[in-house]
Amino acid sequence: MTTPQQAYDELLQVSRELALLNTINAVIGWDQEVNMPPKGAPWRAEQSAYLSGAAHRKFTDPRVGELLATAEAGDFGSDPLSDEAVNLREWRHDYDRQTKVPTELVEELTRTAVIAQGHWAEARKKAEFSLFAPDLKKLVDLVRQQAECIGYEETPYDALLDAYEPGEKTANVQRIFAALRDELVPLVQAIAESDKQPRVEILHREYPADRQRILGEAASAAFGLDYTASRLDVSTHPFSTNFGPGDQRITTRYNTRFFNEAFFGTLHETGHALYEQNLPPEHFGTPRGDAVSLGIHESQSRTWENFVGRSRAFWRFYYPRTQQMFPATLGDVNVEEFYFAVNEVKPSFIRVEADEITYNLHIMLRFEIEQAIIAGDLQVDDIPGAWNKLFEDYVGIQVPDDGQGCLQDIHWAFGGFGYFSTYALGNLYGAQFFAKAREDMPDLDDRIAAGDFKPLLDWLRANIYSQGKRYRSGDLVQHVTGKPLSHEPLVAYLRAKFGELYDL
Amino acid sequence: MTTPQQAYDELLQVSRELALLNTINAVIGWDQEVNMPPKGAPWRAEQSAYLSGAAHRKFTDPRVGELLATAEAGDFGSDPLSDEAVNLREWRHDYDRQTKVPTELVEELTRTAVIAQGHWAEARKKAEFSLFAPDLKKLVDLVRQQAECIGYEETPYDALLDAYEPGEKTANVQRIFAALRDELVPLVQAIAESDKQPRVEILHREYPADRQRILGEAASAAFGLDYTASRLDVSTHPFSTNFGPGDQRITTRYNTRFFNEAFFGTLHETGHALYEQNLPPEHFGTPRGDAVSLGIHESQSRTWENFVGRSRAFWRFYYPRTQQMFPATLGDVNVEEFYFAVNEVKPSFIRVEADEITYNLHIMLRFEIEQAIIAGDLQVDDIPGAWNKLFEDYVGIQVPDDGQGCLQDIHWAFGGFGYFSTYALGNLYGAQFFAKAREDMPDLDDRIAAGDFKPLLDWLRANIYSQGKRYRSGDLVQHVTGKPLSHEPLVAYLRAKFGELYDL
Repeated sequence: MTTPQQAYDELLQVSRELALLNTINAVIGWDQEVNMPPKGAPWRAEQSAYLSGAAHRKFTDPRVGELLATAEAGDFGSDPLSDEAVNLREWRHDYDRQTKVPTELVEELTRTAVIAQGHWAEARKKAEFSLFAPDLKKLVDLVRQQAECIGYEETPYDALLDAYEPGEKTANVQRIFAALRDELVPLVQAIAESDKQPRVEILHREYPADRQRILGEAASAAFGLDYTASRLDVSTHPFSTNFGPGDQRITTRYNTRFFNEAFFGTLHETGHALYEQNLPPEHFGTPRGDAVSLGIHESQSRTWENFVGRSRAFWRFYYPRTQQMFPATLGDVNVEEFYFAVNEVKPSFIRVEADEITYNLHIMLRFEIEQAIIAGDLQVDDIPGAWNKLFEDYVGIQVPDDGQGCLQDIHWAFGGFGYFSTYALGNLYGAQFFAKAREDMPDLDDRIAAGDFKPLLDWLRANIYSQGKRYRSGDLVQHVTGKPLSHEPLVAYLRAKFGELYDL
Repeated sequence: MTTPQQAYDELLQVSRELALLNTINAVIGWDQEVNMPPKGAPWRAEQSAYLSGAAHRKFTDPRVGELLATAEAGDFGSDPLSDEAVNLREWRHDYDRQTKVPTELVEELTRTAVIAQGHWAEARKKAEFSLFAPDLKKLVDLVRQQAECIGYEETPYDALLDAYEPGEKTANVQRIFAALRDELVPLVQAIAESDKQPRVEILHREYPADRQRILGEAASAAFGLDYTASRLDVSTHPFSTNFGPGDQRITTRYNTRFFNEAFFGTLHETGHALYEQNLPPEHFGTPRGDAVSLGIHESQSRTWENFVGRSRAFWRFYYPRTQQMFPATLGDVNVEEFYFAVNEVKPSFIRVEADEITYNLHIMLRFEIEQAIIAGDLQVDDIPGAWNKLFEDYVGIQVPDDGQGCLQDIHWAFGGFGYFSTYALGNLYGAQFFAKAREDMPDLDDRIAAGDFKPLLDWLRANIYSQGKRYRSGDLVQHVTGKPLSHEPLVAYLRAKFGELYDL
């Protein structure tokens, strides 16, 4: 007879073995994006599929189900915040998600998604939605089946959202997004009508890549990224990754004619890496030592990129250094002009290029379309029309073609319905945490302006990073800030910052 | 009932799975040497051990033994050079080697070697053999046990040599090395006494690293290394590695005050990578698609580094480019002076810095000491004395301390007895192949002097690279050159080249 303790210990071993396989896969995935010569691609795909397959087989083995049942029969749950209870809760969550969907459906989804991604890339290039629509119909059908297999209480979309933001509910997100939208749409309009506008051309002057690298790396090191356990490299699509204790890496890409791209990209990935680098190492390889969710992860990238990196306090500290690095380029620009320029708000079509305010509107539109599609209230062929109408309502400009509209993101082509909302949730979580940090540390802005980021990092480490998955995202917000998630902190932050910048 | 064909097919799958695991391990090993931040080391060691362990368990599973027996009972052996016969021969060889040694002994060797390497590094630093001697005694004892488990016909040393040069016999190596030594010792002496000596200071002028990189990469690309399936990076200990079809990488290190280090190091690793890059891809992951042995591998690195890269023909082609790359440094140096300088022969203490002639003497001395140790004719405590005596006899200079003597190499500290001889065997194999290539292509030197390396690469691909492990090393030499391995081609090459350079 296996005791609950023995079962738990064996699950710890399985979890650690999965961490080995997944971090090895992270290393070879990083190499693929950063270094790999082109002819290495087919075999690299085999290597990666082998590791993913091995991890999946190991975790979905019926033995894991038996161990979970045995461990759950013990009294680990008596303290639901104990390490054991947290790990069992999350292993159960993942095990159910991975075993409830029949293998044939998983394989059909994978196959369809591979083909769909090819057609999507072609469709986007030609801005022709009809080239992608047949694949998307198949994917929507499969994703709806997937949701039925996983199960839900209120709406099938809950089952999809749960993959990226465990425990979060569609109805809650709807409510918060609606309140946020009601505030942001008029704010964007007021900004567009303001007479005060930034000199953005200064960001499009000449910024040599090697100096951008030094400036970005120095900023991330100042934030607290430990470069004896990290690296900054170049890749086409910037990302952050965790190879295991002592090795969290980030990438960026340099545009010599646009300052923001690499600099704020580097700060964004630094935020992700700071979270990973400060998770509790003694719990590495278990949920207790892992990040909460995509949304909480994004809250950290946004915190360091925007709440810190796009603040006036930060530029008081960092603009003299920036000017020194690009003396010819920035000789005629003062800190206020620079700070205003990097905070330009301007309606635009592409999500990944959007500013701090309109970004959220880009997300809400996707969230609404996804729900309507999954609920069967919107047909795939009607997506472009729905997209363009919502876009004009929210952002205030007319989409010229589907390449700059509903075809711009890859997410649907890999079946990732439910993913987008985590981007805006990240802004909301982040704003609520940051408001609390400011409340706890009234001199936070002064510290940042003095180039001292340690108080903030320590606060985030104590309140968020060290917690691992102890709390689900909603509970973490409640625990840290004393209130449930609300649109108010983000709205207050945006109103104060941009109201002042644009003289509203 | 499993048929021989079914058993063979299943073995092919196992072999391919091992190739996946081993090439994944190659990727993370390369990253460790080239990129990894220092704090990543402990977890990386876990990742690597996990992959090695998984590969070992998979291959030593009793099921593999059953499959081998079943497949061997079929008639695959009727043509011993068929793909199937070659694969079965090598799988059997490796399976026996890996299963004959009890797990406890393997683990004991691994543990002892880890500790020994730490003590060896310390001992080398302090030039104090006594700090390493106790570990070495243990290792020698374990290695002798290992040889007994594996078995041999004539001498225990055969069982060790067979790990690196399958099928090669100690007696044969002894005979060839003895004949080679008798020729080389007086040749080194004559060179030392020659009035004609190169201007070696020209190699120690200023060579900026970025320009060295361009020059080395261009030379390796000219040799035929496909950079859409390769990369050149920097690591402390240069090496070449194979990540699977389409991705073979090399590393080097730059010394801005010594031209030879990076340049010939790059050509050396290029030779290894050309071999791996031109193995038959349709057999990848099986012995038929794999390199013959360490010795044959070394023959290819030496061919491209020395027989090509240190030839007058090559420098007729490449010196103008080199001078153009370093115009201030080499303005007063003509091609003959440069060619002579990179071919300086001079007795020295450190193997890895030795020239084309004395290098072989460094190896022979190690080979003799290893045999005496394994045979029990020499005690570990007597190694320094034996080393220093042989060194003076062969190379003609007195070893000042053990750090520059018997402590200089790491091989014994990881239990790698039998490894060293493959370095000199590589020179011998390479010379015999190269002499045959010259015979087959009388205009080879002219082609090289014209910067056309394709005829040589094609010849090597047809005769060696495409063969994979079809032949064992001795058989390959016989098959390609029509004669068994002999010291004569290497001696003839060295006599001709250095006799002319040094006016002997």
